[in-house]
Amino acid sequence: MMNLLYEGKAKQLYSCEEPDKVYVHYKNSATAFNGIKKEEFEKKGVLNNTITSLIFNYLENAGVRTHFIEKVNDTDQICQHVTIIPLEVIIRNIVAGSMAKKYGLPEGQVLAKPVFELSYKNDALGDPLINDDHAVALHIVTEDELAFIKFQALRINMLLQEFFLKANLTLVDFKIEFGKTKNNQIILADEISPDTCRLWEVGTQEKFDKDRFRRDLGGVMEAYEEVLRRLTHE
Amino acid sequence: MMNLLYEGKAKQLYSCEEPDKVYVHYKNSATAFNGIKKEEFEKKGVLNNTITSLIFNYLENAGVRTHFIEKVNDTDQICQHVTIIPLEVIIRNIVAGSMAKKYGLPEGQVLAKPVFELSYKNDALGDPLINDDHAVALHIVTEDELAFIKFQALRINMLLQEFFLKANLTLVDFKIEFGKTKNNQIILADEISPDTCRLWEVGTQEKFDKDRFRRDLGGVMEAYEEVLRRLTHE
Repeated sequence: MMNLLYEGKAKQLYSCEEPDKVYVHYKNSATAFNGIKKEEFEKKGVLNNTITSLIFNYLENAGVRTHFIEKVNDTDQICQHVTIIPLEVIIRNIVAGSMAKKYGLPEGQVLAKPVFELSYKNDALGDPLINDDHAVALHIVTEDELAFIKFQALRINMLLQEFFLKANLTLVDFKIEFGKTKNNQIILADEISPDTCRLWEVGTQEKFDKDRFRRDLGGVMEAYEEVLRRLTHE
Repeated sequence: MMNLLYEGKAKQLYSCEEPDKVYVHYKNSATAFNGIKKEEFEKKGVLNNTITSLIFNYLENAGVRTHFIEKVNDTDQICQHVTIIPLEVIIRNIVAGSMAKKYGLPEGQVLAKPVFELSYKNDALGDPLINDDHAVALHIVTEDELAFIKFQALRINMLLQEFFLKANLTLVDFKIEFGKTKNNQIILADEISPDTCRLWEVGTQEKFDKDRFRRDLGGVMEAYEEVLRRLTHE
């Protein structure tokens, strides 16, 4: 009955009977380095669906409008149908990953204030880094839309930092995406999970995120499970 | 008597007796693609020294503070001694070069408003594109300094567009650099010439800049000479 609308690396989107909703299925695939590295993890879909649902609920309650409607089973959720804005919106609190490599900075260096970064979501071009003027020149967003996205991203950062800190985890950086509703409202979309955040344990700096997969550190799903356990304070 | 302080791809800087001044010699070397492509042009030093002197004089008269003091002979000028801020500040009015390639845009597309772009001048890292937050996070500039640089760059763009239009040339894009004086003032430094600007003839869109060298179009020095001729309205 449901038609596959879109298949990404980690999720499938299906149509719903109500045209303004989509059915989101979280897959067990993990990919890195633009799909070159690939592995299946039995529990990944369940964990990321559960963690994302938890976080989007939290953000909604804090007043952030998101596409999330409800978690319908272990691996699936129903969301508002939006047109994704082709931007990877990245906020960094601590230097890690591509920022360390590209600019020759030591991983772990605390940033005096959060760094806002944009990549143009375009596989053919390799998701290149762009600046604010490029985003407007490429007609991805208007200046006002970009100002709103930046404001929301920084607000989400504050909310998430607080949320993860209660689980004794430092939010190093994260990637979010926004979508546009039919009446042109910009709302938070996609997912927020250990796939899209860097989470380091306070003190030990142990990694509880996808870097365990990227860097072959082992215990990938154990780390994701521990994030969920801590977030639910079990 | 003069000590070589610095040798770049296109210029040599020598110390002067007065420690707050430097002697700048314009070389005949043309390089492109990070030094991979190289050629000597007999008149290049003379032409770029003359054109830069002309432009920096014009900007000074329009109220833009620059490092330029005086042209002392065909290939040399005396400038204020500054500490170069390691940023390539780029303003684009029309899509060309790396912007076209990186973001899949057609060369020649007119931008609705000028695009401001920064590269981190760092050979080891390959002069990577950075955004405003990166520039501050990398401690290259403070937020206030960056705001001043952006304001000046956009003002210089307006002045240069007007200047080149009188020579029937469209200023497509250009790269400038800023330096800091001993009392921490930020002033325009480096050069402005067909090496650092893209200049297209109004109407024909014929190139009168370094792209003639990069793209093997021939008549490189003839084009630079024509720019000088037109700017001096001979």
